[in-house]
Amino acid sequence: MAKKFVLAPDSFKESMTAKEVCEAMELGIKRAIPDAECIHVPMADGGEGTVQSLVDATGGKLIQKEVTGPLGTKVVAHYGILGDGKTGVIEMASASGIHHVPKGSRNPLITTTYGTGELIKDCIERGITDIILGIGGSATNDAGTGMAAALGYKFLNKQGEELLLGGGYLNDLARIDVTHVLPELEHINIVVASDVTNPLCGERGASVVFGPQKGATPEMVQVLDKNLRHFSEIVKQQLGIDIVDVPGAGGAGGLGGGLLAFTKATMKKGIDIVVEKTNLKEALQNADYCFTGEGGIDFQTKFGKAPFGVAQAAKSVNSNIKVIAVAGHVGQDVEALYNEGFDAIFGIVPGAADLDSLLAGGRENIARTSESIARLLK
Amino acid sequence: MAKKFVLAPDSFKESMTAKEVCEAMELGIKRAIPDAECIHVPMADGGEGTVQSLVDATGGKLIQKEVTGPLGTKVVAHYGILGDGKTGVIEMASASGIHHVPKGSRNPLITTTYGTGELIKDCIERGITDIILGIGGSATNDAGTGMAAALGYKFLNKQGEELLLGGGYLNDLARIDVTHVLPELEHINIVVASDVTNPLCGERGASVVFGPQKGATPEMVQVLDKNLRHFSEIVKQQLGIDIVDVPGAGGAGGLGGGLLAFTKATMKKGIDIVVEKTNLKEALQNADYCFTGEGGIDFQTKFGKAPFGVAQAAKSVNSNIKVIAVAGHVGQDVEALYNEGFDAIFGIVPGAADLDSLLAGGRENIARTSESIARLLK
Repeated sequence: MAKKFVLAPDSFKESMTAKEVCEAMELGIKRAIPDAECIHVPMADGGEGTVQSLVDATGGKLIQKEVTGPLGTKVVAHYGILGDGKTGVIEMASASGIHHVPKGSRNPLITTTYGTGELIKDCIERGITDIILGIGGSATNDAGTGMAAALGYKFLNKQGEELLLGGGYLNDLARIDVTHVLPELEHINIVVASDVTNPLCGERGASVVFGPQKGATPEMVQVLDKNLRHFSEIVKQQLGIDIVDVPGAGGAGGLGGGLLAFTKATMKKGIDIVVEKTNLKEALQNADYCFTGEGGIDFQTKFGKAPFGVAQAAKSVNSNIKVIAVAGHVGQDVEALYNEGFDAIFGIVPGAADLDSLLAGGRENIARTSESIARLLK
Repeated sequence: MAKKFVLAPDSFKESMTAKEVCEAMELGIKRAIPDAECIHVPMADGGEGTVQSLVDATGGKLIQKEVTGPLGTKVVAHYGILGDGKTGVIEMASASGIHHVPKGSRNPLITTTYGTGELIKDCIERGITDIILGIGGSATNDAGTGMAAALGYKFLNKQGEELLLGGGYLNDLARIDVTHVLPELEHINIVVASDVTNPLCGERGASVVFGPQKGATPEMVQVLDKNLRHFSEIVKQQLGIDIVDVPGAGGAGGLGGGLLAFTKATMKKGIDIVVEKTNLKEALQNADYCFTGEGGIDFQTKFGKAPFGVAQAAKSVNSNIKVIAVAGHVGQDVEALYNEGFDAIFGIVPGAADLDSLLAGGRENIARTSESIARLLK
């Protein structure tokens, strides 16, 4: 009987999408075993590449939309609709990510998640009922108030005037007006793909831990942390929800907390969402081998990276499935993964080379390595 | 029953001896399969590293000896005596190699193989009866007349005076005096490890093809080619041996031809000699797996490189033995080797890196890769 290979890699950053990695793996495997059955399940971990992989894995589509960027100017963002037609998948960074802000302009007092809210709104208008929201790579520290504003929430000062967008103005928040919130919002399930457990405020909070990488000076960090705490008190008072210490509320500058406060959101590890939405475990039924991989693999892979989730899923389906990973960079203490469901891990690099030429040669390097692996499995 | 692994790599040039590669392979294999039986058979192909590998493979010893270098000054050379106590192994380059000649001094009119003859003489004085002689990397173009002179041959001009050393003086050769040749020489079997098929003279001859890389100008090439032809005519006349068109006579500036003329020499491919002398095929009896490798592997490996000879030997013993190669550089069209006895070929490089750091990290990179391979074979 033909051997069954499940190909479930993450993308190789700056080089290949997960789907392209699947194709390169199959190319190599079939050179060795022409009648191999290869099932492609492009993976992701909730971070960059999640929309592309979930769209590819489910036969969905990409939607392009112009929205408000983190600095208030327009940017072109993308999100996905999965093959089921009812699930949207959004990376907040596509609308509100740090890559939209030039280094010299980084100021998390004024950056906003408004564009992320516009993407959610666009989903709602298309009849989407379930949204997967990846929250990595944000430029913002506004506790998701921009996102909420795009969905109809109004954040008012004592005079009843709407606040300007950005976490730097939340000290003036006096009242949250919910009368204009999109009525459909309460029927939308949002699953937040979040691997961070930081609370909204304090020493491990959004502003202190993640503010500096968004351009916050020490003074700004103090202001932002104080403002987020004030915001959480207003939320508690007026919406009856206490988010300040919820693990993950501090993700994406408090967008995690804002989603909990303003939408029907739950948090889940990114890789678990992707494993579920791609039906990876169904694909693994009766599989002999599972190939996975990522641009870089090291001992930290076990902290929620896609290949780790794949290895765990494979062994949970059938402990006899061999899990083989390939990587452009095989890093420190990779042997630690042999206790985590990985059977073998191979580098794909053919020799001394700089990163640029390796990024260009990824397809053939993956194919060649996969071929040799498959030849050993014949 | 414990799985039997034969480890038969060549050296990784500038990084590890073949024996060290064996040790790194075993380290990795045993991490995966603690009770694996690992047989070390360090390999070589007749070129650089052959003495070390044959000494290591047979439990022999290295001899150090000061001899006459290619330019006539003293150099320290090494050769090996194999574990059988009666076979010497010499790399001519150790005494007469191009690495002994600074770039600015390269002049094959005057370089001599005298030191190589001194090493042969030293072997004879120690009771050695069989000599394996690798002839790569020479600085010379003297048709082995220097080597012969060290063994007692006298090369005389019309006046009966001895010629100066070097191929540039052979035009004056009138007579070869054999009366003082070491009497033991006729009982010494010399096997020349040679992969070249070039004749002594002409367009494919020693001077034209290899002269320039030894520093010969176009004019010198003409002189040397003419001198070697004159030399071969005297040899034919006086010794009754016609070496001018023998394949391989042009190896090492005609040392190949000189060995045929002046000693009891036969020529053989380097890898075949090494396979035989290391008893590789005996080691491969009942083996499950054969690991091989070299610093670089590509389609040219099939033209007589050590891993090719190993793969051929393994499959000739038992076509079920899986042959797995590892390399620091996996080069062009390596897939061609899958028709030549190789089952799988893996690069050991962990990521983007320059050559120096890869050379330094060879041991762990080989171990890590061998571990992953062995984990697939469990």
